[in-house]
Amino acid sequence: MSRVVKLAVIPGDGIGPEVVAEAVKVLDAVTAESDVVFDKTPFSLGAGRYLETGDTLTDDDLAAIAGHDAILLGAVGGVPGDPRLKDANIERGLLLKLRFELDHYVNLRPSKLYPGAAGPLADPGDIDFVVVREGTEGPYVGNGGAIRRGTPHEVANETSVNTAYGVERVVRYAFALAERRRRTLTLVHKTNVLVHAGGMWKRIVDAVASEFPGVDVDYLHVDAATIFLVTNPGRFDVIVTDNLFGDILTDLAGAVTGGIGLAASGNINPDGAFPSMFEPVHGSAPDIAGSQKADPTAAILSVALLLDHLGLTDESARVTRAVEDDIAHREGSRTTAQIGDAIAARVQA
Amino acid sequence: MSRVVKLAVIPGDGIGPEVVAEAVKVLDAVTAESDVVFDKTPFSLGAGRYLETGDTLTDDDLAAIAGHDAILLGAVGGVPGDPRLKDANIERGLLLKLRFELDHYVNLRPSKLYPGAAGPLADPGDIDFVVVREGTEGPYVGNGGAIRRGTPHEVANETSVNTAYGVERVVRYAFALAERRRRTLTLVHKTNVLVHAGGMWKRIVDAVASEFPGVDVDYLHVDAATIFLVTNPGRFDVIVTDNLFGDILTDLAGAVTGGIGLAASGNINPDGAFPSMFEPVHGSAPDIAGSQKADPTAAILSVALLLDHLGLTDESARVTRAVEDDIAHREGSRTTAQIGDAIAARVQA
Ligand SMILES: CC(C)[C@H](C(=O)O)[C@@H](O)C(=O)O
Ligand SMILES: CC(C)[C@H](C(=O)O)[C@@H](O)C(=O)O
Repeated sequence: MSRVVKLAVIPGDGIGPEVVAEAVKVLDAVTAESDVVFDKTPFSLGAGRYLETGDTLTDDDLAAIAGHDAILLGAVGGVPGDPRLKDANIERGLLLKLRFELDHYVNLRPSKLYPGAAGPLADPGDIDFVVVREGTEGPYVGNGGAIRRGTPHEVANETSVNTAYGVERVVRYAFALAERRRRTLTLVHKTNVLVHAGGMWKRIVDAVASEFPGVDVDYLHVDAATIFLVTNPGRFDVIVTDNLFGDILTDLAGAVTGGIGLAASGNINPDGAFPSMFEPVHGSAPDIAGSQKADPTAAILSVALLLDHLGLTDESARVTRAVEDDIAHREGSRTTAQIGDAIAARVQA
Repeated sequence: MSRVVKLAVIPGDGIGPEVVAEAVKVLDAVTAESDVVFDKTPFSLGAGRYLETGDTLTDDDLAAIAGHDAILLGAVGGVPGDPRLKDANIERGLLLKLRFELDHYVNLRPSKLYPGAAGPLADPGDIDFVVVREGTEGPYVGNGGAIRRGTPHEVANETSVNTAYGVERVVRYAFALAERRRRTLTLVHKTNVLVHAGGMWKRIVDAVASEFPGVDVDYLHVDAATIFLVTNPGRFDVIVTDNLFGDILTDLAGAVTGGIGLAASGNINPDGAFPSMFEPVHGSAPDIAGSQKADPTAAILSVALLLDHLGLTDESARVTRAVEDDIAHREGSRTTAQIGDAIAARVQA
């Protein structure tokens, strides 16, 4: 009797469809002889769909997606400056809406320097950490507004909203993860300036720490954290941080570990009330779309996170190992499909 | 007839007094034979003063400081976790209060990789850019609060306040600076998420751009900007950004250009209504205080910014050149005072 996983697939815009095609290729390869079957439903969403229909994410789309067991997403977003997208905000209206509506409160972003991957640091050392980025609060809530818009007297505000409920659940997840790893948790915030939000994060980390006596707790201001990411990234094991700081730190972390072409992520609802969503950290890169220049590795590693999330740990490990082997043996330039083919072949070897 | 400059000197905490001593040494050396005289008034402020008197920055302190032509500051802040400082916030109550009360709307932070300085990048290329960080608005305004503090139902908010008035003046300063440099201005924000604040920044940059037709304008999301700071920092000339993004980017920029031991800054009120304040970007580093391990170069380069601000461009250039020469010839380890002596000697050579 085979297990059926209902997978919503959102290729999106730009390079999204290309990298998703390779991710699906690898997913098919790794499950070819197993008794789990991925039943895939494609969803046409993104700037392209908006330009055709005027819709970004309808209630029906959302309900249909929510009925799945998991989501694989490529990348969304049109060509920057496209006048037809002036009044659209695909990021807020689609990507962030999915994260918020599906209560993806853990935005999980591992950073690992694989042997053979070339980053910009002269002496990177061993890099292997995970950023647990809060996904449903902070400066991302969209609680902003402006008065006297377009006049010399305009005032534009943005409010970061943080709740004990929201912070505690993601902090607890991060501690549990640290306990299974190298047992070091670093809170990153800016407590000396953002005293209310930062103070609450700090108090909650200190409180939850008492439940995890084996985990060492460290604190860094976000500015200092960026310094260590380039001077001593090996010091990090698990970083827990808010939505905006996590956004910034994970792009930098991707860069120092060989580029965001390798950076995978999971938008996770640990409670299982909603399907979790897996996506490369990179964007839709419309400038190289359709040219087979994109690296599908981040999308393929996102499949590894997806498999792990579904409890398919063997399959997940096989994908990760295949990617590691592929990176270790890279030479010359390959198309998106050639990289996908190579990794799929290694998965089946 | 000699010109007298009234200089307020705030050595502060930790390594602050040590690095300020060397900065003053170099200032004295460069003005020894000129007809400008620096009349220096020391102000004892910081965590140390707070622990003695309970005061952080009184109205009298502020009025006295405001009566000067310029301010040189070392670093402020006590030992992290010191229980006696639990209810103090030296950063907000002293440093940020000075920046806000003295309307330091331009926080000027140059980043240059000097020949001989060793940064973490394998292939840094030429790095020479300036971050113009807004200094009196954004998430730093202190408009936050919490309800149900300490309970499971706590909500803690922080509001970023941005005005057209505040953004336009700093953007205009950045354009004028770019026009005197390599004529490229990069706005860094997160317009796709912080749509109101980011949208206003973007509109104002576009509007002011029409007054500076010779300056190329670029835009980067803050997360992408951190990637370029480690993969292609040479692309930047002038970056203009908000208070929080500027804080983050300049620590990272300091790291990639050889460490924040070299990073100088000016908190500038271009209108001249209030004295401008010059300080190293680094903090008070209480762990190495008193051990003569701190590098005074950032404080000395802050003196170069101070001299330039006062129109003493020759003196400023001599200090910068002396620092450049010192960095190019560094070997072995030297005490804070030895570095100061060496640079002071080069200034007079
Ligand atoms: C596209 C954008 C809204 C998004 C974010 O800021 O979260 C992206 O940068 C990411 O990191 O997934
Ligand atoms: C000490 C702190 C308040 C300050 C800031 O955040 O501005 C510091 O990090 C800086 O960059 O000058």
